[in-house]
Amino acid sequence: MSDLFARHRETLDKAVDACNQRYSWTAYPESPSSKIWGQEPPVAGKARFEALLGKDYPLAQPGEIGRTGAEVSPYTGEPLGISYPKMDVDALYTAIEQGMPSWRDAAPETRIGICLEILDRCAGQLFENAHATMHTSGQSYIMAFAGSGANALDRGLEALAYAYKAMADVPQAAQWERQFGKGGAAKLAKRYRIMPRGVGVVICCATFPLWNGYPALCASLATGNPVVLKPHPAAILPVALLTTVAREVLAEQGFDPNLVSMVADTRDEPATMPLLEHPLTAIVDFTGSPGFGRWIERNCTDKLVYTETAGCNSVVIESCENLEAMAGAVAHSLCQASAQMCTSVQNIHVPAGGIVVGDGRASFDEVAAALLAAVERHLANPQVLCGTLVDEAILGTIERYRGLAAEHGRLLRDSGPLDYPDFPRARTASPLMLEVNEAARDIYRDEIFGPVSFVIKGESAEACLREATTNARECGAITSHVYSLNEDFLDQAEQAYNNAGASVACNLVGMPINFAAAYSDYHVTGLNPAGNACLTDMAFVASRFRIVQSKRM
Amino acid sequence: MSDLFARHRETLDKAVDACNQRYSWTAYPESPSSKIWGQEPPVAGKARFEALLGKDYPLAQPGEIGRTGAEVSPYTGEPLGISYPKMDVDALYTAIEQGMPSWRDAAPETRIGICLEILDRCAGQLFENAHATMHTSGQSYIMAFAGSGANALDRGLEALAYAYKAMADVPQAAQWERQFGKGGAAKLAKRYRIMPRGVGVVICCATFPLWNGYPALCASLATGNPVVLKPHPAAILPVALLTTVAREVLAEQGFDPNLVSMVADTRDEPATMPLLEHPLTAIVDFTGSPGFGRWIERNCTDKLVYTETAGCNSVVIESCENLEAMAGAVAHSLCQASAQMCTSVQNIHVPAGGIVVGDGRASFDEVAAALLAAVERHLANPQVLCGTLVDEAILGTIERYRGLAAEHGRLLRDSGPLDYPDFPRARTASPLMLEVNEAARDIYRDEIFGPVSFVIKGESAEACLREATTNARECGAITSHVYSLNEDFLDQAEQAYNNAGASVACNLVGMPINFAAAYSDYHVTGLNPAGNACLTDMAFVASRFRIVQSKRM
Repeated sequence: MSDLFARHRETLDKAVDACNQRYSWTAYPESPSSKIWGQEPPVAGKARFEALLGKDYPLAQPGEIGRTGAEVSPYTGEPLGISYPKMDVDALYTAIEQGMPSWRDAAPETRIGICLEILDRCAGQLFENAHATMHTSGQSYIMAFAGSGANALDRGLEALAYAYKAMADVPQAAQWERQFGKGGAAKLAKRYRIMPRGVGVVICCATFPLWNGYPALCASLATGNPVVLKPHPAAILPVALLTTVAREVLAEQGFDPNLVSMVADTRDEPATMPLLEHPLTAIVDFTGSPGFGRWIERNCTDKLVYTETAGCNSVVIESCENLEAMAGAVAHSLCQASAQMCTSVQNIHVPAGGIVVGDGRASFDEVAAALLAAVERHLANPQVLCGTLVDEAILGTIERYRGLAAEHGRLLRDSGPLDYPDFPRARTASPLMLEVNEAARDIYRDEIFGPVSFVIKGESAEACLREATTNARECGAITSHVYSLNEDFLDQAEQAYNNAGASVACNLVGMPINFAAAYSDYHVTGLNPAGNACLTDMAFVASRFRIVQSKRM
Repeated sequence: MSDLFARHRETLDKAVDACNQRYSWTAYPESPSSKIWGQEPPVAGKARFEALLGKDYPLAQPGEIGRTGAEVSPYTGEPLGISYPKMDVDALYTAIEQGMPSWRDAAPETRIGICLEILDRCAGQLFENAHATMHTSGQSYIMAFAGSGANALDRGLEALAYAYKAMADVPQAAQWERQFGKGGAAKLAKRYRIMPRGVGVVICCATFPLWNGYPALCASLATGNPVVLKPHPAAILPVALLTTVAREVLAEQGFDPNLVSMVADTRDEPATMPLLEHPLTAIVDFTGSPGFGRWIERNCTDKLVYTETAGCNSVVIESCENLEAMAGAVAHSLCQASAQMCTSVQNIHVPAGGIVVGDGRASFDEVAAALLAAVERHLANPQVLCGTLVDEAILGTIERYRGLAAEHGRLLRDSGPLDYPDFPRARTASPLMLEVNEAARDIYRDEIFGPVSFVIKGESAEACLREATTNARECGAITSHVYSLNEDFLDQAEQAYNNAGASVACNLVGMPINFAAAYSDYHVTGLNPAGNACLTDMAFVASRFRIVQSKRM
């Protein structure tokens, strides 16, 4: 057994148990509070981040043909000034190929141990990762520490737990003996070997660079495949930090550091296609836009493709116990990370005739007003909850939907800049909310990236559910919510969403409803257009390796 | 727990254990001997087969628009005269869709129980299946009973064991509780549901109609997907027998019999494309030619595709203990089922300088002579071992390679008709063997379907191994063999084949070397062009279903 595997064995075992039972557990605390960490680590992490600014990022990879990178902080509007190696993909792959045999031949426990060590060390750089994520993805500090940090590390460990289970399902050897006719007994000693497929390319997204980064890296690397990380041009630094850690651990353990490499690029000179087209690329993990995700699913036919994209996540409000609590929960989703999360709600379906609230009723307009009021409450401290906009283009999106409001319904709430005392030039936008009816389905069935949402008037709760689940099936959904006091309606809603290939949450209040729990929530069903893969199930890992055998008489 | 699951539980548990440990086990005895079965079953099975000849096959499916089928017995040259429903695929799928919700909503144990019962009843019709396979696929009676009968049933049970393991990995429910900030505890009850993907189309091959038929049906059906069986036009009847059994069991258990349907066709009016193109088709299992398999892999990009095709299986002979035993083992593969098996050997690599045999040596020519002599020995009772040719075109193939012999090397053994006293009009051919050197690689690197093989003179044992493993990697291999007394060479050969993505067997004698053992041999690696799927590993089943969840506060 490898040292690293032994060292982290307890963590792995707990993760496996948590995946099997799906209770609440975490290996990586998600709060950056100095009450947990002490005073020094947050300060030191920030200093390490700042020390990287304006410099060549220290990453020596074979095949470097120049420098690239053009990240700009959405908080300051200033370029980070960090350059990364610009890679000749063929030269890099030639180098990667050298390292493949010894990685392939390493015991699964050795590879798993190394992945566990990588996660552990990444946990040690959560503070610099948080600052890196803030100033690339534009997340708030809290969210950057958790969502693309600690929570994503949990997803990585979860993927590792499944990789371990899948590989453990293959015995290493067997004795086999049987009679063939009168000819005598055949007695064979058999050996089974886990074999990787080839290079795994991990395409990370702009908003949560490591949300799929850790799990896809762990899933491919643990099963024997080298990994090439392809960050979004807007958010390279968090991926670079992971790359550095992975290469360090690999090298320390006597493996070729090129088994984990990074190919950065800019929007003007994209580098994704050569990775997708390289014959050695066997696996593609993609998080990003539905359009490119679908293109990869359809065109990379000789690769294994795992996608997580986006849909038009919905809420159906049939009734609730407490209007303010319900509205608060939904409004939180409209504000959190400026609705740039894959779990952000976009379409809020409310019956025209209003809803039951506790012992009374609330009209449609009262429900809409409660949602508006709740948004305003959440905006009291926007920097913590909303963060900034990752992309200038989102302002154009908001502008467009603002213009569509009158034609399709009415503007419930206009979007405007948010006031961040620490960052006067931050690129921000508060939620834009439109009231429409189902005649406007052409505009609300698109996945709209950013803080644009719709309060959609349906004929009845049943009609709301029908419309929401139809859209989940046809346009995709990663999260769906229902609020109802009526058990029959909840049952019906669960059936309808599930049968539309969507998961559903009922009556969530008092917690961030965007939250997806590693080890417990199967994230993305793969049954609707919002992605074909799940973080994490057995299917996420079982095909990343194959089995070859030898038998001797 | 369903009654059928309980009834067959012990069989399932044994299969799971056998898969986990990979020892020799079978649930379905492969011998048709009346010593095992008694006098009556073989006779009754034959009578049931004969009663089907010349009639409309009794299979009532919605969407029938006429009759089809043009099977001809390779033993008698006579049409079987059986007609099958010709299907309107859209109408059939509309009917299938009706049955999907209740099947989807059934407990995994219910579905597994029904699949176990289907296999059990198929075991009860192994005799009629054997005659049906003989007179369509052209196999010998013994092989028809075992290879596309009992052994294939074992593969079906094996797939079911994996489907059971994969579904059991998903818990049905969980309690989840955690603190969010100071806001209080969130407490969620979660439920997880296994969801099918859609219709599974199973394209069966001509030579072993049910080799992938049982496992693909079990893998898809157990995980909630309806199955449409698409038999090869030359071998419909065995598939029809399975279809009938499956529909009977489903109907008895209160499910829609259309959950298992069959779409038969003829060569002149093929029906495969409408199945592949139907939007409800989500899974394709294919066994057949490498060309069509590759086309499906590349073009059915929105489906899950599992293929098993063929390669140019090789033997490398470096040395052996007993020339006659080694030659006998290899020659058996050249003769068995007239080399129409996916495990049949095609390319026999022998060093030009001859080989070590026990304490002495044998020249290249002596090795070739031993192989020839062994073939003659096996041909003493050809009807049992060789069976007939499934396709007239194989005679043309033999003719073509006979013509190539002089140009590329020499004819070692000519092919000729075999004498079957019971079936004077049987379509047969004994092995055609060519001696060539590696300059002839353009002709021996194709997968040649039928009894054509090459004894290939290599410069050295190492050169033989290099050539054989290169061909495995580039042209595909399902089985590979090495004969050597030299442990170092065996180690080297195992490494070389495994690294080429091929499994390898060493020094097999005294047993049919084509034999692939269910529960023990991972059949097809998926790493070379001979197919992308394995019978059976976790990857064969884990993606056939997805998971949706609901959570309630």
